[in-house]
Order: sequence, then C-alpha cells, then structure tokens
Amino acid sequence: MTSKFQPRFSSDLPPPAKRWNGFPRYNFVGGHNDASEVPVDELIAAAGSVLAREGRTLAYYGLESGAQGYLPLRRLISAQLTDRAKMRVGEDDILLTSGSLQALDLVFEAFLEPGDTVIIEEACYGGTLSRLQRLGVTYIGIEVDQDGMKTGQLAEVLGELEAKGQNPKLIYTIPTVQNPTGTVMSEARRIELLALAGNYDLPVFEDDCYADLQWDGERPPSIRALEQRGADSGRVIYCGSFSKTVAPALRVGYLVADWPVLSRLLPLKTDAGSGALEQMVLAEYGAQRFDGHVADLSAVLKEKAELMAASLAEQFGTQVEFTAPRGGIFMWVTFPEEVDTTSLAAAALEEGVEINPGVEWSVDPGYGRRRARLCFGSATKQEISEGIARLADICHKHTGIPARSGNVER
Amino acid sequence: MTSKFQPRFSSDLPPPAKRWNGFPRYNFVGGHNDASEVPVDELIAAAGSVLAREGRTLAYYGLESGAQGYLPLRRLISAQLTDRAKMRVGEDDILLTSGSLQALDLVFEAFLEPGDTVIIEEACYGGTLSRLQRLGVTYIGIEVDQDGMKTGQLAEVLGELEAKGQNPKLIYTIPTVQNPTGTVMSEARRIELLALAGNYDLPVFEDDCYADLQWDGERPPSIRALEQRGADSGRVIYCGSFSKTVAPALRVGYLVADWPVLSRLLPLKTDAGSGALEQMVLAEYGAQRFDGHVADLSAVLKEKAELMAASLAEQFGTQVEFTAPRGGIFMWVTFPEEVDTTSLAAAALEEGVEINPGVEWSVDPGYGRRRARLCFGSATKQEISEGIARLADICHKHTGIPARSGNVER
Repeated sequence: MTSKFQPRFSSDLPPPAKRWNGFPRYNFVGGHNDASEVPVDELIAAAGSVLAREGRTLAYYGLESGAQGYLPLRRLISAQLTDRAKMRVGEDDILLTSGSLQALDLVFEAFLEPGDTVIIEEACYGGTLSRLQRLGVTYIGIEVDQDGMKTGQLAEVLGELEAKGQNPKLIYTIPTVQNPTGTVMSEARRIELLALAGNYDLPVFEDDCYADLQWDGERPPSIRALEQRGADSGRVIYCGSFSKTVAPALRVGYLVADWPVLSRLLPLKTDAGSGALEQMVLAEYGAQRFDGHVADLSAVLKEKAELMAASLAEQFGTQVEFTAPRGGIFMWVTFPEEVDTTSLAAAALEEGVEINPGVEWSVDPGYGRRRARLCFGSATKQEISEGIARLADICHKHTGIPARSGNVER
Repeated sequence: MTSKFQPRFSSDLPPPAKRWNGFPRYNFVGGHNDASEVPVDELIAAAGSVLAREGRTLAYYGLESGAQGYLPLRRLISAQLTDRAKMRVGEDDILLTSGSLQALDLVFEAFLEPGDTVIIEEACYGGTLSRLQRLGVTYIGIEVDQDGMKTGQLAEVLGELEAKGQNPKLIYTIPTVQNPTGTVMSEARRIELLALAGNYDLPVFEDDCYADLQWDGERPPSIRALEQRGADSGRVIYCGSFSKTVAPALRVGYLVADWPVLSRLLPLKTDAGSGALEQMVLAEYGAQRFDGHVADLSAVLKEKAELMAASLAEQFGTQVEFTAPRGGIFMWVTFPEEVDTTSLAAAALEEGVEINPGVEWSVDPGYGRRRARLCFGSATKQEISEGIARLADICHKHTGIPARSGNVER
C-alpha cells in the first residue's frame, strides 16, 4: 500500500513518450506550416458569424448533422473536390475526421488484420509506416519517380504475389504531392494503377492531403475521379485535409467513399464526432476565401522551396541530390553513401537543427539510410538559409561531407 | 472490372452504420444538452480574443504546447480540479483529449488485452461496455446504491477472483454523478475502493466527466485526490470533460495521470493533437465564466430533472421507480417485470420518442431489461411533459402498463 504503484501495461505498447522541450531553433521536421500565412482575421470573422447564427447547435453531438459531420462543411468539400480533383462527391459520401490521420486509422482498422500485406510507395509518410507496423501488417514498397509510383513495378509485384498465392489487402498511395518526395503521379500512371487494382480486385486508398498545395503544373484528376469515368465504382477510398492548407492545428480531415465502405468506417469512429468549432469555422470561412488563401500560401511555399534548394546547392554543392517538389512543404534529399542520416539527425538536433532521417520515411532501411526529409513550411527564410548552412557544418564535422561549400574548401 | 467492387473488411468489424435521419421529436437519448444554455456570446468573445492574440500558433501542431495539448487550457484544468475535486494537478500531469471518449480509448488500449477482466459498475455507460466488448475483455459489474459502487461487494468479488487465481486488470468507475444512475459515491466508499485497489495492486480509472454538474450535496474529493492524501501514488487515472458542461459538440476532454502512465498513453494518441480551436476558446473562456455558467446550467438541469420525475410520477404512477439524480442529465428508470425496455424503445421510436434501453447500459441483461435511461438535458420542458405522456401511452398500448395515469384509468 505504501509503495509506488507500478502499472502493468499491455505487452505490445510503443516505447514511452519523452517530455516535450519546445521546438529546435531550426525546425525542418513535422508538417508545421508558415505562421505568417495563417488567415487569422478571416478565421475570427468566420467564428463570430457562424457562432452567432448556429452556436446553440453546439448543444447537440454531431451539430444536428449526424455522425458524418457538419453538413455545411461536407457541402463545401463536395464543391471543392468537384472543382479541384474533378471528382463527383455528394455530401453523403463524406465523413469528417480529426485530421487525415484519423482517416488513416479508420481505413486501416476496417481493412487490415495482422499478417496482411499492403502495397505502398517506397518512400512513404512515416505515420503510415508506424501505423502498419503497429497493426502487424507487411508492406511492400514500389519505387517512385517524377511521375509517381512506378506502375510497371506495381504490375510485377502484384503478379509475383499472385504466383505465390498471396493477396495484398489494399494499395495505399499519396499520388499528389507525395510525402516525402513531392512528386505528382501522372494521369497515365493513375489510370494504370486503377486498371491493376481492378484486375486484382484491390481497394485503393488515395491519401490526397497535400494535393491542394500543388503549385507546379496542372493537378491531375484524383484516382477516385478517374474511377468514376469507368464502369467500376467504389474501389477508391479518398482522404484529404484542411491541416496542410489552412492550419495544422485545426484537426479537420475527411474521407470520401461509397456507402458500403463508409457505413463500416463510421462505427469505428467512436469519438462522438470531431471538433465542432473547427468544422463550423472552416465551413464559414468558405470556398472563395480558401481558394485565394491557398494561392497565396502556395506562392510563399514555392519561394521557400526554391530558397531551400538554393541553400542546399550552395552549402552541399553536388554532394546532395533532390528533385524540386511540385508542391507541399517537404524536400526529399539524398546524401552520399558515407552519410547515415539517422546519426546526422541526432548530431544536428544537439546543435538546434532538426531533420527527419530517411529510414523513418522508407520501406527499405537501406534505401532510406542516406536520405532525409526536410520541411520548409514553418521555418522563416532566414532560418532556412542559416539552418541549412549549420546542417552542412554539422555534416562536415561528422562525415567530412561536404568537402567544399560553394567556392570555399572546408 | 465492370462489376461493383465488393470490399473485403476485417473479420471482427461492428455492424454497419445506418444513415442518420435526424433527431426524434422527443429526444431522451444520448448526452445532448440544453441548447438555450450554450454560452454563445462568451464563446464568440473568447474566440475573437484568443485568435487575435495567438492565432498564428495554429501553424504548429500542438500549438507550441507539445503533444499534451494547449498549455493555457491545461493550467485552467489544473486550477479547476484543485478547486472542484480537491486534487493537486500540475499542468504536466494532464493530457488533453478529443472528449473523454478518447481518454477511455487510450487507457483501455494501454492496459487491456483480449481475455482480461475489468471491474465496473453494474449499471454503466454504454460506450464503456461496447469498448470492452470490442476489446474482448470480460467485465464484472458491482451493484450501485445511493452511495455509489458497493465496496462490500467489490471486496467479495476481488476475493473470489483471487481465490480462482484471476487478476483483474483495473477498476473502472464513474463515481460522481454516475452514468446512468445519477448517484454520487460517498467519500467513505471512495476510501474503501482505494484501499481495495491497493490491496490487490490494481489501477483505478476514475471517469468524472459529469462531476461538474453535481447540484445536490457537496462534491466529494476525487478518488485521485484521496489517493494523494496517502503514501500510495500513481494508481488512479482520472478523466474529465468540457462536453457536458460547456457544449457536447466541443470535443475536449482530459486525462490526469502520473508520468509513468501518461508517457505510455501519449504514443497511442496518434492524431497529432485534438482540435486546437476548441482548446484555445475554452482556455480563453476561462475559470470565472465557467463557474458561473455551470451554476446556471445546473439549476436549469435540476428543474428539468424535477419535471421529468413529476411527469413520470404523473403518467406512470407507482409503476416506475427511480432515484432522483444528484446531477447530470440522466434518469435511470425501472419498469415493472412485464416491460422489456428494448421492445418499448423500438415501439416508442416509431412514434417519435427515443429512450436508451437498459440492456445497453447494464452488465447483466437480466438486470437491464426492465430499465431505461432517459436524458432530460436537451428536451425542452414542454417536450419532457409531452414526451413522457406519449411514452406512457405507448407503453400502455404495448404492455398494459401503466393501467392508470394520475386519477385516470386507461
């Protein structure tokens, strides 16, 4: 009775969390965004008007809209996706979620069991990898080039699995502004992926949470939109988010699926609805303001991407490689063989520079070990130039790379 | 390729959801609250001032407060719990969650595995029962009287389990304004429960989400507060919510636990934070407004509880039994043996009256089958009198009970 209680946890818990100690000085991790671009005044106006008109509905779980979420926001999303992703979406096809992360959880829980196999991109969002690991699911990575997931390789892998009598459970893809590569899957590849999914009768989970931030080239129709042009239907489950475009701390994402799927996902959402205030304010904020804001934000992010690219070129010369991202907030950087980015990240964090080591964003650790994901969304321009210079110093100190910076030998 | 896709779901999913068709005319289910009592003007003011001052922090996941949630709200909760629950709580002992439902999910996931046994109250929140069922956990119900869970019976049950070599994993209780019975566990029982938990080395999960709405008698110290008076520590995990007091659709709850527990719960919260706007607005709304609001709301709810009690007495005479709730929004009603409340609820819904059948709120279906939970939170006074009259009509039509209403033979 007098001793300190020792809790007995389940056997399969992740390692304990560490206390949060604030952000590092040069923060190139996570999905944070540009603080100066948060549309604060418009959000205040939206909060005031929607609460004045409908604040009393906060007394009801689901805001008198049912478990799928605030109806005016579902209508806004329906209009946006028709416009931006060329997709027909009814308000009843949408489930509002607590960020796109909850959308991942719901779909994975509905479809996946331990021992299942899933097809994903070789470089892939770390939160997807950790979720699949925790579920005891095997994942197979398909290479990504500038046109997105290589569908030729996908066809081979699906054929090999079939020959072994194995059936993957689904194909998960981030086709538009892929995380971490920043690539956009071509329309041709989307059509090929869909045909393969049809041949093997697999659901496709299309994670489009960065798609609104594509600034380079025309946004292709979503895979779900392309499916709607054919006779097949209901195969593609789509998710998106407002966290990347309006503000990360607003936890509003959405799933789009046919009712046979949505009706099975809904009972897994056991939180009695996602945050009402955020749903109401976003709906009130509205389509017109959203479009203008996203255009402004994309321009700012593009400038930052170019600055980070220039800083990397200046500081690392030819010793790092990257493809200019076509949108979003990330750059996927390849270092020389000598650099293990997990060690580099640990050393950099000691000196106030945080980066995401590539192994956490890769299916194959051998592929990921000399890669890193750098977020340019939240750092200021000054922090980007200074932080990349400091990263080069740290990398040089630990690995001898880069040997030169610009015209200066180190 | 041309056929409709048939998704292959996991083998253990709950049944599919049905489309939402709006609320019934007389809504006595769920945890909805009084729409006229939502403090709309204050929430608008709070949203305006907090966003003007700190809106740009929405660009960062976690609002520069880390994964435990918005620091000013944690400070507010710390002060409130010291005042209201007589509990010492530091800001670092708190994890903000998406309603108390997410708190349940996190604690159950951290502690429970299929085949485990949990001790709960015989009449218990339906969402707890469904969670435990889905986790494959066995639960044992302890009877509740006007002083809460019967600790004498708890001692017997723990002894019997020990004799059989079985170790329950935790004790879950809703001690203050118990759902559905509306009772408050006495301080003596709380101390006994804590001693038993110590003897058997069990964690206690104290769900206090209705505690702020106690209107009858003095609120006892929380079980966690009582633990702090002894030498033992860290055994009691506490959760609370703003959904019951400020507005249900605001999805903000909180967990209080020592770091050895919190650090294992945090990695299970994979949603990158709960809704930021709701956290910010609630913190800004503040302690003083909260206290005044809760006093007003409690007075309104008490009147409604008395009206529902009077309506039940008038319409059903001596044929139903209930104890006046000591707070909250629910009444737990016992019908005569002849009434199966699951059938009654189905018949009532057809005629626009919705009630929660007792089996969904009971460990033992035999105990629950003639009981029902009636929420008086959201219905207007007119709806309460009319709805209970209509319920009596429906019940009479289907079971012959009540045979008389007031002085009128049916």
